Amino acid sequence: MKADICEIFGIKYPIFQGGMAWISDWSLASAVTNAGGLGIIAAGNAPAEYVRDQIIRTREQVGGKPFAVNIMLLSPFCDDIAQLVIDEKVPVVVTGAGVPKHMAKWIEAGIKVVPVVPSTAIAKLVARMGAAAVVAEGGEAGGHVGDTGTMALVPQVCDAVDIPVLAAGGIGDGRGIAAAFMLGASGVQVGTRFLVATECTIHENYKKKIIKASDISTMTTGNSLGHPVRALKTAFTRQFLANERNPDMTLEEVEAFGAGALRMAAVDGDDKNGCFMSGQICGLVTREQSCADIIQEMFSEADDLLRGASKWVK
Amino acid sequence: MKADICEIFGIKYPIFQGGMAWISDWSLASAVTNAGGLGIIAAGNAPAEYVRDQIIRTREQVGGKPFAVNIMLLSPFCDDIAQLVIDEKVPVVVTGAGVPKHMAKWIEAGIKVVPVVPSTAIAKLVARMGAAAVVAEGGEAGGHVGDTGTMALVPQVCDAVDIPVLAAGGIGDGRGIAAAFMLGASGVQVGTRFLVATECTIHENYKKKIIKASDISTMTTGNSLGHPVRALKTAFTRQFLANERNPDMTLEEVEAFGAGALRMAAVDGDDKNGCFMSGQICGLVTREQSCADIIQEMFSEADDLLRGASKWVK
Repeated sequence: MKADICEIFGIKYPIFQGGMAWISDWSLASAVTNAGGLGIIAAGNAPAEYVRDQIIRTREQVGGKPFAVNIMLLSPFCDDIAQLVIDEKVPVVVTGAGVPKHMAKWIEAGIKVVPVVPSTAIAKLVARMGAAAVVAEGGEAGGHVGDTGTMALVPQVCDAVDIPVLAAGGIGDGRGIAAAFMLGASGVQVGTRFLVATECTIHENYKKKIIKASDISTMTTGNSLGHPVRALKTAFTRQFLANERNPDMTLEEVEAFGAGALRMAAVDGDDKNGCFMSGQICGLVTREQSCADIIQEMFSEADDLLRGASKWVK
Repeated sequence: MKADICEIFGIKYPIFQGGMAWISDWSLASAVTNAGGLGIIAAGNAPAEYVRDQIIRTREQVGGKPFAVNIMLLSPFCDDIAQLVIDEKVPVVVTGAGVPKHMAKWIEAGIKVVPVVPSTAIAKLVARMGAAAVVAEGGEAGGHVGDTGTMALVPQVCDAVDIPVLAAGGIGDGRGIAAAFMLGASGVQVGTRFLVATECTIHENYKKKIIKASDISTMTTGNSLGHPVRALKTAFTRQFLANERNPDMTLEEVEAFGAGALRMAAVDGDDKNGCFMSGQICGLVTREQSCADIIQEMFSEADDLLRGASKWVK
């Protein structure tokens, strides 16, 4: 059975844009929604007022078309934003980094909830709690990541739950989309490729770094803190790793060193102090394009592969 | 263009069986070759005499059908085995963990060389050196692994080289095979699923552990030594990790702690001291089957998916 992500979420293409803190604002989210995908505003650690403003601006651009808010469950403003999405009648909520305690309330308010999950155990838990779908995100992804790779995670999550699964992590072109369908997913979530979208408002330095990056340009930091983050290898990530290995630094000191680094990358393009989140697929990303061009190109490539797939039949 | 792995290597199904030290012996290799894949004898750290014996026994089982020897380039017996495969006219050599310095000599002797690569840079290097194909192995795999996940690695390696690419890491059923084709690979290498093959001679405890394992049952150790190894989480891996983090232990002491652990898992099934190598796809492996059944089932599943792939066209 082909689960229809497009029908469930009211979108043209079964693609979600990743909720990336300091990056996924109204500009990117509305461009993705207007291009036929599901645009997602990342709440990150921002206060509710900021997120409300982003929702209003997104609505100005997309009219009645669907979009989502990605709520980071570790945010100090998580409770406020959990209420905000209800008040603002946001159609879809995507959650990351934990199990969403507000889920019953959201579902009661008619919101479709799509948790990003790193394992079959969490997928099963949120499916029982009423999730509309899950994003099975492999360790190839940028930002906060789990340990299991997409190729291993997606089929195992598909076997574990009865709700639709979107694949994320390592998907940068039509090959990744077609592969995701073969693994059992009904759609994809893509982050890194949208970093270089024309409508993505990050600093030009950030986009240049992504375009220049290769398959081995990323690393994870924060493993010792229990929440690894994948980003481009830079002076910042090397220093962060050195701090983690420094027995004279407390975990709090290590954590404090990273404060503000995402903003310094996204807003200031700060080579030295910024943390430039990226997935391992960055080596495939070679030029800036509009969200509409990115989505149409990816699905056109996927369609060609899927139409020709029978040539591989033994 | 569809690269024909079957034609190049003289096999029926485009599947290599992973070369796993202490595991991939004549029994497993010959069963895979007789089932239509490419069986591979793992030389591991064993001396040339052992490998010669394995080659002779494999030939007794497969007659003139092709098989390979996997040469671990870090082995103390690497030079001896490099000559042995020439003397024994082994048709295919697969190499892991480094750049094969004996490559020109092998190619001159008519041997097809297939390096396992963790990055586009090494793929390009071995392609220039005359490799017949590469195995792009993602970090989901068991044993010695790189950092990049299969979903991100395979398309980037396919773009980087003109020779055929086999995908490895996270492939345990037909979904993985079909996905690998979509990513641009012309075939697959599978390790973990063959651990539970009837013809695999490892200890019964090892097979039971694989069958019981879930998506989060593995971890990597040895990161601080520069050569991470993925295995099932056990008392051994936890202690190895603790040793790595112990500032009072030298790298040599940490390394010495792991000596013999693969043998203790494969031969003795030793719960406490063994290192049970496994890929992240172990959660999909649910029963013992013959190599022929495994291969036929995997390709039958893949064929169904590939035939039906056009239903996903947008």
